Formats: sequence, C-alpha cells, structure tokens
Amino acid sequence: MPKFVYDFTEGNKDLKDLLGGKGANLAEMTNLGLPVPPGFTITAEACRYYLEHGNLPEGLADEVNAHLAALESAMGKKLGQSDDPLLVSVRSGAKFSMPGMMETVLNVGLNDESVHGLAAQVGGTETERERFAWDSYRRLIQMFGKTVLDIDGDLFEDAIEDVKRARGSDNDVDLTADDFRKLVERFKTIVREQAGREFPTDPREQMDLAVEAVFNSWNAPRAILYRRQERIPVDLGTAVNICSMVFGNMGMDSGTGVAFTRDPASGQQGIYGDYLQNAQGEDVVAGIRNTVPLKDLERIDKASYDRLLEIMETLENHYRDMCDIEFTIERGKLWMLQTRVGKRTAAAAFRIACQLLDQGLIDVDEAARRVTGDQLAQLMFPRFADRVDGVRKLTKGMNASPGAAVGKVVFSSERAAELARAGEDVILVRRETNPDDLAGMVAARGVLTSRGGKTSHAAVVARGMGKTCVCGAEELDVDVKNGQFTAPGGVTVREGDLISIDGTSGDVYLGEVPVEDSPVVRYFEGELAAEEGGDLVKAVDRIMRHADERAALKVRANSDNPGDSARARRFGAAGIGLCRTEHMFLGDRRQLIEKLVLAADGTERQAALDALEPLQKSDFEGIFEAMDGLPVTIRLIDPPLHEFLPDITELSVRVALAGDEADEKDRRLLEAVNRLHEQNPMLGLRGVRLGLAIPGLFGMQVRAIAEAAAARRSAGGDPRPEIMIPLVGAVQELEAVRDEARAILAEVREATGVDVPALIGTMIELPRAALTAGQIAEAAEFFSFGTNDLTQTTWGFSRDDVEASFFGRYLELGIFGVSPFETLDRDGVGRLVRIAAEEGREARPGIKLGICGEHGGDPDSVHFCHEVGLDYVSCSPFRVPVARLEAGRAAIAADAAAGGSDSR
Amino acid sequence: MPKFVYDFTEGNKDLKDLLGGKGANLAEMTNLGLPVPPGFTITAEACRYYLEHGNLPEGLADEVNAHLAALESAMGKKLGQSDDPLLVSVRSGAKFSMPGMMETVLNVGLNDESVHGLAAQVGGTETERERFAWDSYRRLIQMFGKTVLDIDGDLFEDAIEDVKRARGSDNDVDLTADDFRKLVERFKTIVREQAGREFPTDPREQMDLAVEAVFNSWNAPRAILYRRQERIPVDLGTAVNICSMVFGNMGMDSGTGVAFTRDPASGQQGIYGDYLQNAQGEDVVAGIRNTVPLKDLERIDKASYDRLLEIMETLENHYRDMCDIEFTIERGKLWMLQTRVGKRTAAAAFRIACQLLDQGLIDVDEAARRVTGDQLAQLMFPRFADRVDGVRKLTKGMNASPGAAVGKVVFSSERAAELARAGEDVILVRRETNPDDLAGMVAARGVLTSRGGKTSHAAVVARGMGKTCVCGAEELDVDVKNGQFTAPGGVTVREGDLISIDGTSGDVYLGEVPVEDSPVVRYFEGELAAEEGGDLVKAVDRIMRHADERAALKVRANSDNPGDSARARRFGAAGIGLCRTEHMFLGDRRQLIEKLVLAADGTERQAALDALEPLQKSDFEGIFEAMDGLPVTIRLIDPPLHEFLPDITELSVRVALAGDEADEKDRRLLEAVNRLHEQNPMLGLRGVRLGLAIPGLFGMQVRAIAEAAAARRSAGGDPRPEIMIPLVGAVQELEAVRDEARAILAEVREATGVDVPALIGTMIELPRAALTAGQIAEAAEFFSFGTNDLTQTTWGFSRDDVEASFFGRYLELGIFGVSPFETLDRDGVGRLVRIAAEEGREARPGIKLGICGEHGGDPDSVHFCHEVGLDYVSCSPFRVPVARLEAGRAAIAADAAAGGSDSR
Repeated sequence: MPKFVYDFTEGNKDLKDLLGGKGANLAEMTNLGLPVPPGFTITAEACRYYLEHGNLPEGLADEVNAHLAALESAMGKKLGQSDDPLLVSVRSGAKFSMPGMMETVLNVGLNDESVHGLAAQVGGTETERERFAWDSYRRLIQMFGKTVLDIDGDLFEDAIEDVKRARGSDNDVDLTADDFRKLVERFKTIVREQAGREFPTDPREQMDLAVEAVFNSWNAPRAILYRRQERIPVDLGTAVNICSMVFGNMGMDSGTGVAFTRDPASGQQGIYGDYLQNAQGEDVVAGIRNTVPLKDLERIDKASYDRLLEIMETLENHYRDMCDIEFTIERGKLWMLQTRVGKRTAAAAFRIACQLLDQGLIDVDEAARRVTGDQLAQLMFPRFADRVDGVRKLTKGMNASPGAAVGKVVFSSERAAELARAGEDVILVRRETNPDDLAGMVAARGVLTSRGGKTSHAAVVARGMGKTCVCGAEELDVDVKNGQFTAPGGVTVREGDLISIDGTSGDVYLGEVPVEDSPVVRYFEGELAAEEGGDLVKAVDRIMRHADERAALKVRANSDNPGDSARARRFGAAGIGLCRTEHMFLGDRRQLIEKLVLAADGTERQAALDALEPLQKSDFEGIFEAMDGLPVTIRLIDPPLHEFLPDITELSVRVALAGDEADEKDRRLLEAVNRLHEQNPMLGLRGVRLGLAIPGLFGMQVRAIAEAAAARRSAGGDPRPEIMIPLVGAVQELEAVRDEARAILAEVREATGVDVPALIGTMIELPRAALTAGQIAEAAEFFSFGTNDLTQTTWGFSRDDVEASFFGRYLELGIFGVSPFETLDRDGVGRLVRIAAEEGREARPGIKLGICGEHGGDPDSVHFCHEVGLDYVSCSPFRVPVARLEAGRAAIAADAAAGGSDSR
Repeated sequence: MPKFVYDFTEGNKDLKDLLGGKGANLAEMTNLGLPVPPGFTITAEACRYYLEHGNLPEGLADEVNAHLAALESAMGKKLGQSDDPLLVSVRSGAKFSMPGMMETVLNVGLNDESVHGLAAQVGGTETERERFAWDSYRRLIQMFGKTVLDIDGDLFEDAIEDVKRARGSDNDVDLTADDFRKLVERFKTIVREQAGREFPTDPREQMDLAVEAVFNSWNAPRAILYRRQERIPVDLGTAVNICSMVFGNMGMDSGTGVAFTRDPASGQQGIYGDYLQNAQGEDVVAGIRNTVPLKDLERIDKASYDRLLEIMETLENHYRDMCDIEFTIERGKLWMLQTRVGKRTAAAAFRIACQLLDQGLIDVDEAARRVTGDQLAQLMFPRFADRVDGVRKLTKGMNASPGAAVGKVVFSSERAAELARAGEDVILVRRETNPDDLAGMVAARGVLTSRGGKTSHAAVVARGMGKTCVCGAEELDVDVKNGQFTAPGGVTVREGDLISIDGTSGDVYLGEVPVEDSPVVRYFEGELAAEEGGDLVKAVDRIMRHADERAALKVRANSDNPGDSARARRFGAAGIGLCRTEHMFLGDRRQLIEKLVLAADGTERQAALDALEPLQKSDFEGIFEAMDGLPVTIRLIDPPLHEFLPDITELSVRVALAGDEADEKDRRLLEAVNRLHEQNPMLGLRGVRLGLAIPGLFGMQVRAIAEAAAARRSAGGDPRPEIMIPLVGAVQELEAVRDEARAILAEVREATGVDVPALIGTMIELPRAALTAGQIAEAAEFFSFGTNDLTQTTWGFSRDDVEASFFGRYLELGIFGVSPFETLDRDGVGRLVRIAAEEGREARPGIKLGICGEHGGDPDSVHFCHEVGLDYVSCSPFRVPVARLEAGRAAIAADAAAGGSDSR
C-alpha cells in the first residue's frame, strides 16, 4: 500500500506530482528550517483513488490519525479540544495552480464549545478575545458552507450586510462579539435550510468532510473547464494540506502579507509586497482595508521585517529564482504560509535571468530557460505611453497582432498607399481584409477590422508583417462607401481622423496616444548596439547569443520581396524557407493573370506567361541578392486561379444588372469565373494540380528562377535557389513536375553557360503526403511541412471558414486549448509530421526537413520541431528572433530531459 | 551468379516472375510432352540487370551460346546456316501481359545467303519455295526494322502497296518471289535511310539486337504509361523467348489458329476458335483473309484436329481452368506456340467455375476464387437485347452506372415523378443533377447528363440506387428551359420522345431498344428460385452460399428509407451501416429547414425542430420495421445547412434584378445564405460542429430515434438502433454529443417505460480521427470509417471539384490507376484505417468496426477491409450481393495466403 500522508518534514519541492505545488513547497520550507506552521499533506494519489472508487482508500484514515496525533502532540493540544483547541486549515493544492478548484477552509476545529476555549487562550481584553473567537467561528461556518456544502456565498454575505445595516456601519471592524455570535446562529440556520443538514460540530468530521470536498472539487464543472482550456491532464487529482492555524487577526501585532523577492514588473532587486495589519488572508482579497507597502513593516515590526528579508534571501538562493511568498505574523511571530516561483513581466524575466546568472545562482542554459519566446515577442512591439487627456476610448476588439499604432483613418488600400507615400501615418480600417488589401496593409501603421477573429486574413497577415492589428471590433459599423465608421455612443469617425489602436490589448482610441519604439527591435535592426541598450537589451543580447549557440534548428524566414528578406537577414534568418510566388501575381499583374485565364488557345496563354516571366525573374533576383549565400526556397504557385479573379456572386450580379449593356470583358470574365468556380477551392484545382493542368505555368516559374539565379551568379553573387512543389499527395505528381523542372534547368544552364544547382523538393501539407513520405522522399531533395494546410486537412476544417462559425464555441468547450492554427496539434498533425520525418529520412538519409507557415514562429511548435529533429523552421521575418530563442531553448530542454533520464 | 537462360525443358508455369507468362507456359507445355518447338528463355532478371547497368550481365553471352548450341544440335542445323538455316522467333514475355511492349520478331537467321538455303529446304515447287523464302526474308526485315530499329512501319507498308499497285493487285497472294526479292532490296534501303545503318546480315547479331530491343521496350513510353495505368510495378522487366520457327505458311497443309477450351462467352464446353490455312499469326491479325471456325479443321486435317482436341483436354485438366491456345500446323504437323488461362465473360466465369467444380478439378473455395464481384455486378444489370431497326445511335457518354433503360425523355424531377405515377417509363435528362433531382432519379428508369464524370452526383447516386446512368455526354446540348436536347447531326429530341441508354457502354439511342431483366437479380429478389433459374443462376447461388459461409465480414447496406432497407434485406444485408438522416430533410421538408435557418430566436428554432421530430420519428420506425432484429446505424445530420438553401449566386442575382420589388422572403433567405455562406463548405460548419453550434438539432434527432425505437418495441418489434456522430476530429467533440444523447435516451426511457439500448459511436472520416483513434475509442462504442470524406481530406481534394478539372489528366498520367473514390487508396487512406482499427481496438477491445460509403461495395476495398479485420462493410443495397461475394473471396484469399506462407 502506498503512503498517503506526508508530514511537512517528510516532503520536498520535487514531489509536486504527489504533494501538489503548495504541499511540496511547504515541506521544502519546513526542511529549510523556516517557520512553517506544522502540518501534513494528503497525497494526490489518495485523491485519484477516491475519484476512481468513490471511497477513500483503506488505510488512509489510520495514516491521518497517526499524523494528526503527531501534530497534536507537537502543538500540545488536540483538534477542537474544548479548553484549548488545535485549529487547522484545509487547503487544496494540485500540481498546477487551478483557480477552478475549492481552495481553503480555515479554522477547522471550532464548535459551540471550543469557541470558548479559543477565546480563553488568545490574548487581549475579554471583549477582544470574545470577538476574535466568534469571528473565527463564523468564518469557519461561512467557508465550510460555501466550499464544502456548496451553498451560495451571497446568502452569508447578505446576512453580514443585514447585521452591519442594523449596526449602522459598513465595516466589519465595527461588529462586536455579539454580532458575530448572532451571525454564527444565522449561518447555522442557512446551512440547515440550504444543505438540509446541521453544521457538523465534530471537529474531525469537519476535517474529513473538508478533505472529501477538496477531492470532489477536482471534478467541479469550473475545474473541468479550466483543465480543458489549459490542457491539464484530467487524472492528476489534487493533494490536501492540513496545516495548524496561525492568526494574523489577533491584534495590531499581527498581520498578513505577500512579498516578492524582486520587482515582478521590472525585475529590479529590492523589497516588493504588501502588508495588512490585524487581518487574515481573505481580508486582503476582499479589499476591505488598504494594504501598506511591505517596506512599512520595518517601521511596524522591525524584528519580523528583518527575519522576512533573511528568509526571502534564503528562498531566492535556494530556489535560484524570484519567489513570491505569503506570510502571517501572529503576535510578533512570523509564519510562512506559502511560497512559489513568482510570475513576472517579459522585461523582468530577461533582467532577472541575467541577474541570477551574474550572481552565479544559475548557469547560462538555465538563464535561457527562464525566458520565453512569447516574452521576447512582447518586448518587440511598440507600446503606448501613458494615456493622454483628450483621448477617448472607442471600443475594444480582439488583440490580433500586438503593438501600438497611431494614424489617420483610411478605408481603402489605394488611399492608404497614397497617404503613406505623402509621408502620413495611416490606419487601414475595413470590415475585413482580403489579398487586395495587401498593399494598403503594407503602407499602414496598423489595421483595424470589424469582423473576423485571430486567424482572419487581417490578423494572420498583420502578425506575419509584425504590424499592429485589432480585429473583430464588432461594435464598429464600418461604412466604406461613405468613408466613415461609427462607434458606440454615436461617435462617427471619418477618413483622415486620427485614431490609436493597441494590438496588445485590443483597445481603440480616438485621437493620438504617444507611441514608444521598442529598443529590442532597434537592437535587432542593428540600430542600437547591445552595450548601449541598457540592461534589458544587454540581457536580450546575452541570452540570444547563447540560444543561437545551443540551437540545433536553423531559423529561416517566409518572405516574398527583397525588403522583407533583408529585414529577415538582419533579424538573424539563415535563409528563406518560403517564398510565395503567387504574391507576385497581385496588384498590377492581375491583368496578366486574367489574360492567362481568358486565353482562348495555347498561343494566347503562352503570351501571358511570357509577359509574366521577366517580372518574376526580377522579383527573384532581388530576393537572391538580399539572401546572397543563403538558401531561398521558392514555392511554385499554390492557390487556385480564381483567387485572382473577381468574386463570382458580385460579378454575376453586375452582369445581370447591366443586362444587354454588360461589358464584353465582364461577360468573358464571368464565363471564366463560372468555368473555374469550385464548391471548395481549398480542395480543388491548385498547387501541383494546377501546375499539371495548365501547361507552361510551372515551367515559366522555374525558368524565371533559373534565369534569375544565373544572372545573379554572373554578377558575382551566390544565389542558392530551392524549388518547392506545393500540395503533392502522390510521388507521381512530384516526379512529373520534377522531370519538367530539371529539363528547364538544363536548358537555362546550356543557354546561359552558368551552372547554378537548385534543389527540388516538396511541401508536405496533405495527410497523404505525410503517410507516403517514404515514397515521396525518393523524388524530393527536401521536405517543407506546410502545417497550415496540413492542419486544415487533418482536422477537415478550413481556417477561413471555421473561425466565425464555431472556433469560439470550441475554445469555450475546451475542445481546443488553443487554435490548432496557432500551436501545432501534436496528437494529430504532429503525428503526421513525425511519421513523414522518420520515413522520409529512412528513404533518403540526410533529406533536408523544415517547416513553414505560422507554426514556424510559435514557441511550442518550435520545440516540437526540435524534438522531431527538423533542420529548420521558417516564420515571418518579425518572428525570427522569437524562433531563434525558442530553437535554443528547445535544445537546452531536450538535453536536460535526456540528462534527467540518464541520471534516473 | 544467377542462371540467366532456361531451356523450355527447365522451366514451369510457376516461374512467371523469372520467365514471364509466355515462357513459363511454353516450358510447362514442353514438360507435359506437348509439341512445342524447341527453344529457351532469357530471364527477366537479365533484363533488370540490363536496364539498371546499361549493359548485358557478364556470363549471359556464354549461357546463350550454350543454349543456342544445344538448340542447334537438337534441330540438326545452325542459326542462319547458309544451306539449311535454323530460324528462330524472338518474343517478349513479361509476367503480366503488356500490350505496350515490343512483341515479336520472326524468321531471325535469314540473310542474302540463308534465304537460298531456306528455299532449298522447304517443300513445294521451285516457284513456291522461292516465293516462300523471299516472303519470309522480307517479313524479317520488316519486323526487325519496325520493332528493333524503331522505323515507321508505314514506310514498309507503302512499299508493299507500291509493288501491289505495279502488279495491279490488292492482295499479297498475287505477289511473286520476284516481287518479294525486290521488296527485300527496297526494305534494306529503307533501313539504311531511316536507321542510318545496314540491315545486319549476321544471324547472331540479328538475334542479339532483337533481345536488347525487347529489353529496351520495357521502358518505351507506351509501356510506362500502360504500367502506370495498370499499376504494374516498374521494375519487373521482361523475359525474352527464343523459339525455333515453325511455319503455318508453307502451303495448304499448313496453317495457324487460336482455340479456347470452352466458350469464353457462355462458358459452355465445346470447340471454340478460328483457323487460317497457309498463314502466319500476323496474317490473322492483319485480317487479310477470313478465318474459318475451328471445327472446320476436322475436315481440313483430321489428324491435327484430333491431336489438338486431345491437347486441349490435357491443358484444361492440367491448368484446371479454361485455356486459350495459339497453334501452328506446319505441313500437317501440329505445334503449340502459346497457352494461358483464358479471359471470359461474367456469365462464363460463373458457369465454368461450377463445371470445373462438378468435374472435381477444383474445390469450392477455388470456384469462388474464379469469379469476381465485378462479374457478379455485371450479371445484375439489365441489358439491351440485340439492336433493332429504326433505332439511331445519338452519342456516347460515360458508362457511369451499368444497365439498360428505355423511357420517355423528361427534363425535370417533377415531370419525371408525374409521368412515373401515371405508369410511364421515363429517362431523366439534365445537364447535371443535384440533390433536388433525387425524387426524379428515383422515379426514372435511367439518368442521362451532359456534364460530369463517373464520380459526379448523378453517377454516384445512380450507382447507389443501381439505376442506369450515362453521364458527361458532352455532345448533347441540353436545353431544359425549352424542354429539348440536340445531338450531333442536328437531331433534336423533345420531352416525351423515347430514348434508350446503355449504362454499360455509355451509348445513347433514339427510339426503343428492347431490354431484358437480369435473372440473377430476380433470384436475389426471391422472385426466381435457384433451381428454376438455369445453370447461370444455379452457379451464382452455389458460389454465393459458399461465400456467405466463408465470409468473416458482415455486409450491411446504406439506406435511408424503408423500401431500400427491405430490398437490402432481401439482398442479404445484415443490417443498415449508414442511414443518412439529412436525406429526410429534402423535398417537402425543405421549408422546415428554411424555418430553422431563418429562426430569429430560440423559440422559433425550437418550433422548427418540433415540427421535424415526428417526421423523423416515422422515418425511423419504418426502417426499424424493415430491419427488425438487425442493427441500424443512424448518422446524425452531416452536411452544412446551406446545402438545403438556394444557391447564393442565383439568389443574389434574383434579388438584385427584382430591386425594390424583391420578395421579402427572398431577402431574408439571402441574408441567411450570406451569413451561412462558406468558402469551402466541405471544410466548414457541418457534422458534429453543426450539432454543437445549433442547440437542439442533434437532440431532436436522438429523441426521434429513441421514440421510434420505443414505439417499435412496444409494438412487439426488435429495433436495434446505433447512433453515429459524424465528422469527429477530437474525442472532446464526441464526449459532448454523447453526454447529451445519453441524457435524452434516459429521458425517453423514463417517459415511455421502454428500454431500448442504443450504441453510440462515431464516423472515422477525418485524418485526425484516425490518428487519435485510441483516444476517441474511449468514448465510442463503434467506429464506422467514412472513407469518402477520409479520401477527400487525406488527398486534399473534394469529389465534387476535382473530377472535371484534373482527374482525367491524372488517370492519363498514371497518378491514379483508378479514382481513389472508387477503390480505397491503401497507401494513404488505407494506412489511416489500419492505424485507427489497431489503436481503437487496443483502447477498447471488441469495439465494433465497419466501413460505409462507396468503397464498401468495391471488391478490392472489401478485401482490404477483411485484411484489416473490420466487422462489416456497408454499401448501397444493390451492391450487397457483390460485397457478400467479395467478403467470402477475401476470407478464402487470406487463408490461402496464410497457408502459402506457412508452407514456406
């Protein structure tokens, strides 16, 4: 039989699985010799047994008896003893902090008799002692009723309000012992009426019921929901801590507080925290009285203050990290009630890691583990300075792409570009965006939409560009035609009006809020040297350099123009992982695509292709130049052709309304659009299928790549093209395109006399490609996992379609903890990636493996890519530093895990 | 070093991998003591070496020398010897018959000298002998030039035409020895001009070049294409047979023929074949003279005839199957040139299998292996009798669903139903069909469309119903509005005109072609007892009974109405594997769906659901009654709601054209359609997502099922409902719906007092469901593989969209051998099925596993399901017998394979 109960002296901080976070840290502090009130922990294993079998495990009662007896003996009094009761707190404590669960019942052990014993034992005047004892008793019944018996807490609060009203006061402090005695009676009645039972007066029954209630709270709906959302395993269970009570409300020489060993906001060393005299923890939470800064404790109780500082130093050195602490002072004696590694802001995380490194408390691997890519990303966005008068908050949308942007409102891409060219800052406001708005998004400082969620076109593209975006601001009524939008309260905002949008919070303001640039970005851009950047930039620099050293994964960028490519290179990209050639088909070139689609015969089609080729060639030359000496993976055209044509419904209506006077070009276009129309374009004629269906299309692109590379090489450059075939599902598709591509490469080699080798590989973005990767690898020199499409087909939902209709509901139901388009779904999509990586490598040892798409810049996904052993991740230029950091952290984590398992 | 050359005396029929089909069977006949001209076979292994290394394997030349010397010694003359030349044929012969490859060079060994030797050795007058020898020589140069030197064959034919024209004849027979001598010269010139080399006069060089040419022909484009289409492995290579020549063209006592040991059309025993006097095999192919029936050989050459019959009996007994044979008689001596198991019609296959069984040549397992589900399917379709005068062929479309149908042309579903009610046979003619045409398709005898391929809506639905369908008849111009279509040649067909369509060939006729019912279907329907059905029906009955006995897989049917269910039961279905509830939402009930979609609030929505519930309940009652005592798997609504609404573009145009006078209902509908519009409905809000998004929808369906089951049970029935949740990708989705469904089942149990247990399970139709099947099985009591959707998402293309745009091209390129929507793609989709079956079973031992969708009735797919160990397949009622037969055959094949591997 396992051991179900651990005295605080028996555990340690590494037993979180068994004792929960709270219990493990209480044991750790006990063993450090710190003043922790004695107690013991019932393990999560006992909870698991209880939840599975519906009853407590045999032997648990005996163990509890033994530990309780030991506790009573140590304290010199018995639980609930009438003349001098031992009182205990019963607290839940799972491995992960879980706000969905019951947390605490204090003062267990009080009843109609022991309340007198308590009054007899505490200090102060008789009035004070009586008042304290009855207050403690009513607190027990109230907490027990709420958390153990599941009674609506408002009933108790209402009763207190009644008494206060009768007393003509609105503060608990004015209540007397008699008031509390009456409340105890009233509370007992509430329990009887609501729970259909008497409040249990047997102290041991109180304790046992509280323990079972903690166990049961693991499966409370709120807890289940929380676990689903946070992806906490369902079967961990929770431990229960039984701790002898100490009281911060025994007079002005008592109190309770929280402390941090460093400033959680800035990371600066110093004394941070709050203290409340003559109070218990829940009084702080209730906010009835104001706390004082922790420094003031020095004045109030210097001995306790000094002791606390000493303990904080001990804890920080012991945990080798910033800790947060809950403590109570009972009549001048300091007690530690909880500690844990403290939460902190992004800037604090970087600063603290480097401080601890300098102090020799941690090594540089550990410093890198103490920060995250998400934190780095937060440090890279511009921010609003403090609010300014005359600025009005209009609404709040979704925080789709962080940052802060101020500019004049524009409603069209053309207008955005026009004003930007004239040197104006603009915010592009649309109902939703589409590929036509790209130029406007590039020109704008930020993007605001009234529709679409975090994976809408606007959000995804903006994040990719590192551009501030607030989307789905549904309270706004955007009227593009009339060049205005209205906000709640009837505010109308017109083109040219200044607004400020906060992509980190989702807030939208009328007027200008000052914006500060991120020094971290200036550092990455090379505008700010590390040694001149202050301690934050120095910390970032130090950790980034270490991460790069440790990383096994290379980081490339997704980019389809020279500007982005150059930026990506400055940000540390080791090449281009995804150059989307279809982006070069937008704007002015659209008419060439129309010609291609409307071509009546092979000659017309070839003419359209011939016109496109030099444009593509010059695009590629610029990118090769920006990425000279580094690999550039170019994906041949992927989307279906009708994406470049007008919408079928709009065009049909236009032609129908025009009747006989319809434009001849519109008519022909409509014919083509009808011909190309697909029920499910995502599942239609695109990618390699399009390449095989339209003769010459892929060939034109391959020729442009080859000629651009040859031109660069002739000019003394070192272009490294990699040609990528999209949407392959069967090796035969790849073979057909590869053979054609090789022939064209040979032709260009012959014609130019310049030999630029080009790898030919494929996207793995369909389940079938992953499942037959062994076959496909025979014909592919590299794989790039297109996890956006792979997520779509693996789950069978398209990004564009599902978000509005059911993603919200799914996040709510906990079906996802996070959208699988943001973080790679390991069980489904990840399993396919793993299969393909393994079998691809088996068929072609040394095959280059990478990932492109949004997941390439997502921290958790980067770790997954490291685990699977990919060669690189590719992400938007702005995410490159984040991915670099996470690539290093992934390597460190993997080594630590390997070391950990070795030492077992 | 392996042995590369086998004398005919060394091989046997089981060495097809090494010797090819032809070589293995020549060896088998040689060892049976049959008169095969001596010779030897160079193995496919030598070919593989040659293709891989570009040169012949070392040692091959020596082996050929030795075998050739032995052959020369046996024949008493040397290859090409001037005074009495040994002549040989060089023939390709791969494991699988491959029309894409070079086949034969005859008369190898002739040159300017040995032609005289040949003339000296053969019989007849000098004129005859000279003519024979020079004819043989020109045949060699002609065949060698064409097949070895790759010269355009027309050049030779043109030269022959020139000579015939000069001679004033149009028959080879009139040509003289001198004419042939001139042709030899002319042919040599052609070789010199076209191939840039002299025709090789060294007999051994002729032979060696011919062998290499056969090897090279393995990689000829036609051969590659053929292999791709037939899914023949690329690396098998071909064997080469070197066989001493015998001549059927040595006079009227010579000849050549083909024979079958039974009638390949009917399976009747008897003498079937053709014979041509004084001719070589290629003369038969060229069709210059008419063959005579084989029986006539008895009159021409009784001795050879009797010997042939004797040999045919030997072969049939030896091969235990109907054989086809090529033979030559040289001056009264019979020679066997080839044999193989003969191709036959479906009816012959069944008859022959049972005859051989009766003869004791094969056992009943073997009899079942000798027929296929496809053959059974062919026997089940009605057919046209012989053509009739006054019937004109209009066009040929795709043979989408076999059978023969005659009826009056109608252009709308309503009209089809109207005329059918009046007792008329109708053919529904549409450009393409959609779900609205279902009623019309049910009412019609057959369906004809001018658009769409074999997996279009019309084709799929028609096959499912066992209804004759010709689709994609692109030459027809269908004008629904004016109630007519036009065919090539300006024929106009109007509503009410009689047409006949042949779904087996794709032919469309104007007028009535008489149709015969299939006796096999009448047998399955129970209208015709086995013993009264003639030998074909008896054979079907006998094999079906054995298949049922052997089958491990059960066969269920896809059906959503009582009529189909009853038919499925008569056809042997063991339950319903897929009842699509959305089919019950069509027709009159459409307006209820509109109400549901347009519902302004929960009350209106509930009202719409309440109105639907009794309708669904009564549907289910009927099905439970038809399938009393057997499981009925009911799938909750799967497609997106807008599938039940008007098309967005049509509606937009209608509303736009109507302007201010637009119908209020149309306006509201358009709003709803716009709201529900999805870019990719297949990847949108459907299946379980719809169920979770629209409160009460799934609940209504579950309640209808539970109440229908309770009602049936109360009426003394034995309903066995299984509730199936579609499109699950994560176990959490399933859990949410399952919990709601269980609550409703309990409510109905309580309300009715009747307890009908219902299994709750899920479709596995998304890659993620398959990849996480272990998790999903924790919440699912059964899996049904929805391989239609699974194919769509695994390949990333939708059935509706891809067929027109690129399936044709893909079949042409050999990317598919067959559409993955017809036959389950084992490497991709199949791998997912296998993963899910294994991991589902591991998580929940004994979980019920089945497959529904088109693949359930496809023979190859049924075998796959057996291999994976599913419990059942489900297919359209009409395919049930096919699936039953294949289920039995799959079990037999698996046992044989297991036995085979045991004995190794």
